Amino acid sequence: MAIIECIPNVSEGRRLDVVTRMADAIRAVAGVRLLDVSSDPSHNRSVFTLAGDAAGVEAAVLALFERAVADIDLRTHRGEHPRLGAVDVVPFVPIDGVTMADCVQLAKKVGREVADRFKVPIYLYEDASDNPARKNLEDIRRGEFEGLTAKMTSAGWAPDFGPAAPHASAGASVIGARMALIAYNINLATDRLDVAKKIAAGIRHSSGGFRFVKAAGFKLEDRGIVQVSMNLTNYEKTPIFRVFETVKREAARYGVAVLESEIVGLIPSAALMSAAEFYLQIEGFKPDQVLENKLRLET
Amino acid sequence: MAIIECIPNVSEGRRLDVVTRMADAIRAVAGVRLLDVSSDPSHNRSVFTLAGDAAGVEAAVLALFERAVADIDLRTHRGEHPRLGAVDVVPFVPIDGVTMADCVQLAKKVGREVADRFKVPIYLYEDASDNPARKNLEDIRRGEFEGLTAKMTSAGWAPDFGPAAPHASAGASVIGARMALIAYNINLATDRLDVAKKIAAGIRHSSGGFRFVKAAGFKLEDRGIVQVSMNLTNYEKTPIFRVFETVKREAARYGVAVLESEIVGLIPSAALMSAAEFYLQIEGFKPDQVLENKLRLET
Repeated sequence: MAIIECIPNVSEGRRLDVVTRMADAIRAVAGVRLLDVSSDPSHNRSVFTLAGDAAGVEAAVLALFERAVADIDLRTHRGEHPRLGAVDVVPFVPIDGVTMADCVQLAKKVGREVADRFKVPIYLYEDASDNPARKNLEDIRRGEFEGLTAKMTSAGWAPDFGPAAPHASAGASVIGARMALIAYNINLATDRLDVAKKIAAGIRHSSGGFRFVKAAGFKLEDRGIVQVSMNLTNYEKTPIFRVFETVKREAARYGVAVLESEIVGLIPSAALMSAAEFYLQIEGFKPDQVLENKLRLET
Repeated sequence: MAIIECIPNVSEGRRLDVVTRMADAIRAVAGVRLLDVSSDPSHNRSVFTLAGDAAGVEAAVLALFERAVADIDLRTHRGEHPRLGAVDVVPFVPIDGVTMADCVQLAKKVGREVADRFKVPIYLYEDASDNPARKNLEDIRRGEFEGLTAKMTSAGWAPDFGPAAPHASAGASVIGARMALIAYNINLATDRLDVAKKIAAGIRHSSGGFRFVKAAGFKLEDRGIVQVSMNLTNYEKTPIFRVFETVKREAARYGVAVLESEIVGLIPSAALMSAAEFYLQIEGFKPDQVLENKLRLET
């Protein structure tokens, strides 16, 4: 069975009755499962994690927009997190039995539908955008809801779908397709923050490291250790084991050992399987040798 | 959802129409999936791999017995593989959301039912047997079908369920519960068979090695290398990474490197996940952080 993950970020994290109504709207859709809802009052934002087949996630996103556009007004919304719209960002992520191309197609289809039904302008992002200047979420969101009217009339910022001006209360939405993001931290057996920062700088893309790694060094004050905190944005092209081994090697150069690593939140099975294959030097392994995969494939 | 794997071994590997009828009987059962059928003419034996919930695998095993008892006659059966009965061995294996105790209970229930309905004597084995002398399949099967009448009347060999003498054509069956068995080979970058044999002797239980490892050294003539060929009979208690690391270390003592390893057939997801956790030093990881597991758990 095809599995697509979808993680809509919505601009409401304080009125929990509103969040509950949106969650209920998703749960009422067949062919999709709501795996997690996480609300942050200071960000005034909620993140829904859902998964299902293409038809299921499509219907769930439309149901979510219907509630969010009715219940959220960006003109009175305040919070720490930057945002453009009521449903702020909607990424589709290929998990199993679907390609990135499938998710790109789905993002465009849902974007067009949302624009038609709710009169909300849509920007495509990441793999769903063909425009290099409009792949990065931060670039699209710069200026936020308050600057949206001006931005939309400036050169290069007409939306991909929908009206040429923001929805009065719901702003605009960013919809796209991307690889699953893995939040991965490596804790070092030292309190030397400079070591964590140097390693982070060495492995992250922005300063010359791996293409699909974002990284920063932090101190974990309560434990007296430091952490290299990472987002792995494409575990197929920059696999977790290569990042781990590189951090371990760079730490050793400072006489520092890796204490442990941790995966925050969800991880696709394939990301861990590839680590097992690498370290055990397994040749010729096929995913359908995993009993559970075989069961799912033949559903 | 609970998943139990069941791998009935049947004494027919030549008359493929008979094998097909047995496969069809399993496929007709709801709540179970037939994952693989593999027939060996020289052994004159077929292995069915199926998986499902307890009610599903139970119904499938009963449907298989019905066909096998009707179609197979051990009095005329010849083949290289030792066997006691038409349905020779039926192991139940816990895969996900079930315990070994659940599988032991299921083995006893199915054993009792088979004995009642088909008048076939049943021996319990492995974890389903409380008798240390009757845990090992080889011990139960010694003497084969031809020696069964004599064996069943000798001290200590009354069956666990069913008649005190063999079924005239279907013999007796061995039913039990065990951990998933992983067929795992490590190929060494050398043609020195003595190295493979010494390593195999070092890691296998029978000569002082790990509790749940069976191992032998072989030459792969066509490739000019040697192989340590293993069965891992409990991947929770003797995990695959510990076996791999030990073989690698012992090979290094002879100046030999590990070329690659291979997994033959199916492997439960958890066996590979534990290797990823070990090598990446992941702390506090929970199975429901794997996206696919979370989807299955909430079915």
